[in-house]
Amino acid sequence: MNLALDAAAQNLLFREAHTANTFTDEPVTDEQMQAVYDLVKFAPTAFNQTPLRIVLVRSAEARERLVAHMAEGNQAKTASAPLVAILAADNEFHHELPTLFPHFPQAKDVFFAERAVRESSAQLNASLQAAYFIVGIRAAGLAAGPMTGFDPEGVRKEFLDDDHTPLMVINIGKPGEGASYPRSPRLAYDEVVTTV
Amino acid sequence: MNLALDAAAQNLLFREAHTANTFTDEPVTDEQMQAVYDLVKFAPTAFNQTPLRIVLVRSAEARERLVAHMAEGNQAKTASAPLVAILAADNEFHHELPTLFPHFPQAKDVFFAERAVRESSAQLNASLQAAYFIVGIRAAGLAAGPMTGFDPEGVRKEFLDDDHTPLMVINIGKPGEGASYPRSPRLAYDEVVTTV
Repeated sequence: MNLALDAAAQNLLFREAHTANTFTDEPVTDEQMQAVYDLVKFAPTAFNQTPLRIVLVRSAEARERLVAHMAEGNQAKTASAPLVAILAADNEFHHELPTLFPHFPQAKDVFFAERAVRESSAQLNASLQAAYFIVGIRAAGLAAGPMTGFDPEGVRKEFLDDDHTPLMVINIGKPGEGASYPRSPRLAYDEVVTTV
Repeated sequence: MNLALDAAAQNLLFREAHTANTFTDEPVTDEQMQAVYDLVKFAPTAFNQTPLRIVLVRSAEARERLVAHMAEGNQAKTASAPLVAILAADNEFHHELPTLFPHFPQAKDVFFAERAVRESSAQLNASLQAAYFIVGIRAAGLAAGPMTGFDPEGVRKEFLDDDHTPLMVINIGKPGEGASYPRSPRLAYDEVVTTV
């Protein structure tokens, strides 16, 4: 009654969705990934800076390079997932701002002239976009397996450059047998929310 | 065809949703906020750490204290929104880990004994949860107006403590007249995604 979102959508995105650790062999297509992006690209970021950049790791050669930088417990699932995405923040996002934020094209120079400011803003806003992307993967009827257990400097050197900071790696596919742990407890509303 | 999420839900959460800068007088109830939380609490974080904490600013006195720390351009809308939420990361989230991550109760000590590690992990994971929360506000048929334009140290001292890092402030309500800018451009898929 307090939600406008229909029950099927609530279940697909949140209530019945689980992080997956195993996947079926069913491929994840570029068309699916484009549909995910074209849905979640509308979600908000500060100054519409949208600093998230995504590397889809498809070739066997690239997959092998990535797996070498994953934490041991993440290696087998990253090697076998139908598709793996590296999510990174673009610390030079300000070059796009005059196009992306036409209400105030000066934002690039007024607010984001300093690299440290850009890094901090890109970190926050690309993280928001990473979450939207996870929701989008679920919206495509797929399961996400997000991981922060990897060597960020290794992944940066192997797949990115000095202007990009890796945030997470996500395995993507249809959940396989025993894909998920049982749901862990969540904090109660009163443990998280206070009112003043 | 590439999305399992129905079109109405796509529109409600992403395609037709906009950041709001003005709101109607219609109140936002605690029951609505609880419904939002009880939907998005299921979305994934590392080790199920769920470090997001939320302060709902309801009283006129508290609202006035918050507005004083907002950037000038955010003051009027923060003063007049039906409800305002301060979102923060709990850097001491590890105390809850044995309950929240029963698969590996030692995670608290093995991975999160150091404050700097906790701060970095809480920053990323609370940011993910901030994005889920924005999606949840939209799922309740409400509009969100997320803002990072405020004095974080001022907000921390006024509403939080040294163990919490403020991430953003969100105005919440039904969109009012002229609530949103026209949709700004988004980067194309090929500008964001590369395949290796």
